[in-house]
Amino acid sequence: MAATSKTLGVLLFPQFELLDVCGPLEMFGYVPDLTIHLVAEAEGPVPSTQGPALLAECSLEQAPALDMLLIPGGLGTRSGIENEKLMEWIVRRSTTAEWVLSVCTGSALLARAGVLDGRRATSNKLAFEWVRAQSAQVDWVDEARWVWDGKYVTSSGVAAGIDMSLAVIERLVDAEWAQRLARQVEYEWQTDPDRDPFHRAAKDPATK
Amino acid sequence: MAATSKTLGVLLFPQFELLDVCGPLEMFGYVPDLTIHLVAEAEGPVPSTQGPALLAECSLEQAPALDMLLIPGGLGTRSGIENEKLMEWIVRRSTTAEWVLSVCTGSALLARAGVLDGRRATSNKLAFEWVRAQSAQVDWVDEARWVWDGKYVTSSGVAAGIDMSLAVIERLVDAEWAQRLARQVEYEWQTDPDRDPFHRAAKDPATK
Repeated sequence: MAATSKTLGVLLFPQFELLDVCGPLEMFGYVPDLTIHLVAEAEGPVPSTQGPALLAECSLEQAPALDMLLIPGGLGTRSGIENEKLMEWIVRRSTTAEWVLSVCTGSALLARAGVLDGRRATSNKLAFEWVRAQSAQVDWVDEARWVWDGKYVTSSGVAAGIDMSLAVIERLVDAEWAQRLARQVEYEWQTDPDRDPFHRAAKDPATK
Repeated sequence: MAATSKTLGVLLFPQFELLDVCGPLEMFGYVPDLTIHLVAEAEGPVPSTQGPALLAECSLEQAPALDMLLIPGGLGTRSGIENEKLMEWIVRRSTTAEWVLSVCTGSALLARAGVLDGRRATSNKLAFEWVRAQSAQVDWVDEARWVWDGKYVTSSGVAAGIDMSLAVIERLVDAEWAQRLARQVEYEWQTDPDRDPFHRAAKDPATK
């Protein structure tokens, strides 16, 4: 067990995608000595795109030191990219975090904030053009389950965040532990970051 | 689009398993004309086993008429089976619901409440003996991703709830729509209820 005591901060905003947050947290919730903090503009309930609300325990200003950052996607990213306060927080906290993760269109927030400049990154296949438009300084990878570049790990759409999280947990603890965790929650972990069945599906008009 | 206006009630209790609730709700949250109600003993935040809290909008008594019921699993089922108020609510609401779904050890709550008597049902492979012990009147199926018997649909562990939910959505709307939804959230839907790779893994000491 290689894990040492760490903190993971998850950014919530109105209309975040429920599984972008709860898929990863199902997995990170089992990692020993990892403390999860749900952070939002204001403390209190934050409604997801799907309706159910998660409770943010602290505001952006109140958030403690965060070793890891998780930025979800969802419809709320459309207004999120225009939110200066959110953008500044992402820049500031990405600078100090050891690892910065995004799920789905969460990479649009990172790209717009400028923290992915010069890096490889991916996003949801069905929203890719909008995400790409947030920054021309990012080397966008349109066929990947997730992309790891330095301390930044960006995943493809929604469910891909679960596969990415297990890969991060593999580095945080070890491979056997991550495999056992996936088995415990009866999840068939796609361990290959380059295997992306949804890249092709998105290009095929018959599947739209 | 075959769906008509329906309500889905999700039972929350302290230490529910986060993905048991949020996996299915990611999918049900997209179904047109379906209203989701999070129900708990008391209105307000309910903490999951993983830490993050979901907000229950109504108490057991306040819950409106529910066409569908979703009962999650998690560590909280251990005290849940001893909670008379919860058991009575499950019996009363299962009687009037058109469909009753459970994820993981949620079937232990249904079994203990007696509503699965004479029916086929499944649960998490790693907690199966404890679940089985809640009722000898249930025909327990230990190799299945999910089991559909009449109006009761019980799924295997945690992530299996997502596959089951898509199967329910297939009946609620149609197969093409459910497939498109899975693709949209980049989830590789296991459509075969009898395919259960975790049954064998649970019996293999090398994987424990």
